[in-house]
Amino acid sequence: MLAVHLEDGAVSTIDIAPPERPQGFALLRLLCAGICNTDLELQRGYYGFKGIPGHEFVAEVVEADTRELTGKRVVGEINVACTHCDWCRKELGRHCPNRTVLGIVNQPGAFEELFTLPERNLHLLPHEILTERAIFTEPLAAACEILDQVTIPCGAPIAVLGDGKLGLLIALVLNAHGHPVHQYGRHAAKLRLASAAGVETRIAGDALPVAAYDWVVEATGSAEGLRQAVAMTRPRGTLILKSTVHGIVGVDTAPVVVNELTLIGSRCGRFEAALPLLDHHLIRVEEMITARYPLSQAADAFAHAAQRGTLKVLLHP
Amino acid sequence: MLAVHLEDGAVSTIDIAPPERPQGFALLRLLCAGICNTDLELQRGYYGFKGIPGHEFVAEVVEADTRELTGKRVVGEINVACTHCDWCRKELGRHCPNRTVLGIVNQPGAFEELFTLPERNLHLLPHEILTERAIFTEPLAAACEILDQVTIPCGAPIAVLGDGKLGLLIALVLNAHGHPVHQYGRHAAKLRLASAAGVETRIAGDALPVAAYDWVVEATGSAEGLRQAVAMTRPRGTLILKSTVHGIVGVDTAPVVVNELTLIGSRCGRFEAALPLLDHHLIRVEEMITARYPLSQAADAFAHAAQRGTLKVLLHP
Repeated sequence: MLAVHLEDGAVSTIDIAPPERPQGFALLRLLCAGICNTDLELQRGYYGFKGIPGHEFVAEVVEADTRELTGKRVVGEINVACTHCDWCRKELGRHCPNRTVLGIVNQPGAFEELFTLPERNLHLLPHEILTERAIFTEPLAAACEILDQVTIPCGAPIAVLGDGKLGLLIALVLNAHGHPVHQYGRHAAKLRLASAAGVETRIAGDALPVAAYDWVVEATGSAEGLRQAVAMTRPRGTLILKSTVHGIVGVDTAPVVVNELTLIGSRCGRFEAALPLLDHHLIRVEEMITARYPLSQAADAFAHAAQRGTLKVLLHP
Repeated sequence: MLAVHLEDGAVSTIDIAPPERPQGFALLRLLCAGICNTDLELQRGYYGFKGIPGHEFVAEVVEADTRELTGKRVVGEINVACTHCDWCRKELGRHCPNRTVLGIVNQPGAFEELFTLPERNLHLLPHEILTERAIFTEPLAAACEILDQVTIPCGAPIAVLGDGKLGLLIALVLNAHGHPVHQYGRHAAKLRLASAAGVETRIAGDALPVAAYDWVVEATGSAEGLRQAVAMTRPRGTLILKSTVHGIVGVDTAPVVVNELTLIGSRCGRFEAALPLLDHHLIRVEEMITARYPLSQAADAFAHAAQRGTLKVLLHP
């Protein structure tokens, strides 16, 4: 069967044997996959990754211990937790120290025709949700994670920095939850997707407002964005760090201490929070699809995904 | 009258006219002052400071609008707030954007024979509190600020990194509030001051525990300490940043995001919280006094304060 292989920054396709299905796991046939910024970072050497990437997917269950799952269309949580540590007992398997992560850490990813994931990780998709829409479940869950971590008062404006895929989804999710969102980005075309849903968007020049927001979300993926986000946060305000910047970032910690800011790292979220949003009229994710490629042209798809201005690139088997 | 002057890293003494007393201010005669790490950072160029430093003091009121204050022994909050902005109305004058700060920002400091501060900033000292003990009110308030910002569950061990003056006071304050404290430092002699009060102390080698604490306080004042503190914090844990590091610090933000840490900057605190601790048997601050100098030998006092192994250096008029 066909699989995408990533090694030393090179994306290739290989022909490998279908995976064995361990007990408790489902064998899944890929229907559609999405390329995420994390995949591009893996390509750049993040985590020293080598293997089959891919963690945004919709699949059909081919075989599972639970017979009723067969033939069902599913999405799946990407963290494969041990189920018996303290974190797992607290239903925070996303932080299980023994976890593997689909397509990221010690778990072959979804960019292949067949792959496996524990049954407990799977969520059935309602019939009315289009497959290409459901690709956004995982990044929507990452956006929803913010609302699981902090309680933002009604009516408090939230600044979102960055207009990449994650920045847009965060703005849409916060907006759909009734928060006034001011999104700062550099691409008018991308920002229009958010403004169409009611987000107030602004082209971020050099003169960003200083100490202007009690709630700021950093989703630029750049060191400069992090510095700007610190400057935009009011004393005693909260800055949510949504993007990992590859490597060491130079930060001036003095304003964080002097202004007593709260910085909160935020990563994956619960699919339960994201699934209802797939059906929400203010979450228009289809417009974020820039291109579609067959799995066999994964190298081209990765190159396209890395281009400036690109949003979501999909892979079809 | 005698005043200490700091300019371009050089400490000198000058003879100047006594200050005018603005309305609402008290004229104060210095009884004793303490040299703080911030003073040493001002000397190193932090804030581009030039003028009379000093913000840890005990003084006698010489003259005030409120007659009853005359002759009283006082300590004072160092932030001189505008009293009418949003922050001031929320009783958070410490974050007033129009504030001056005694001996730090646009307000002549306490290292001089006579100086002024608003009456509303002053707190009367009870007779039984020794003057040299009361010098620690301001740094104790800064330590107490942690408990004003976060609610640490009963019995949760707290790691404190750093055994400088602030690190020791933080460990003592958290310990006096019943929290199990594990303090990591590099100086056995300093750590003994904390262990005598019941703090569990450890000489920090290269092998610090990883992902071991839900609550960590960083008080090393070093970039390396910040990196170690991030590594010691458990996923979803809270790291309180107590020390400002001069300049840009290289931080790997990935573990903050991946482990969803909460980083909280923490600065000055309320004197109301600190004053009762001056009388607490587990807060033995006298033992932190390394040396005493007359104001006229301030340059020697600053040099002594900057030496490795020194704790508090006092200035007497």
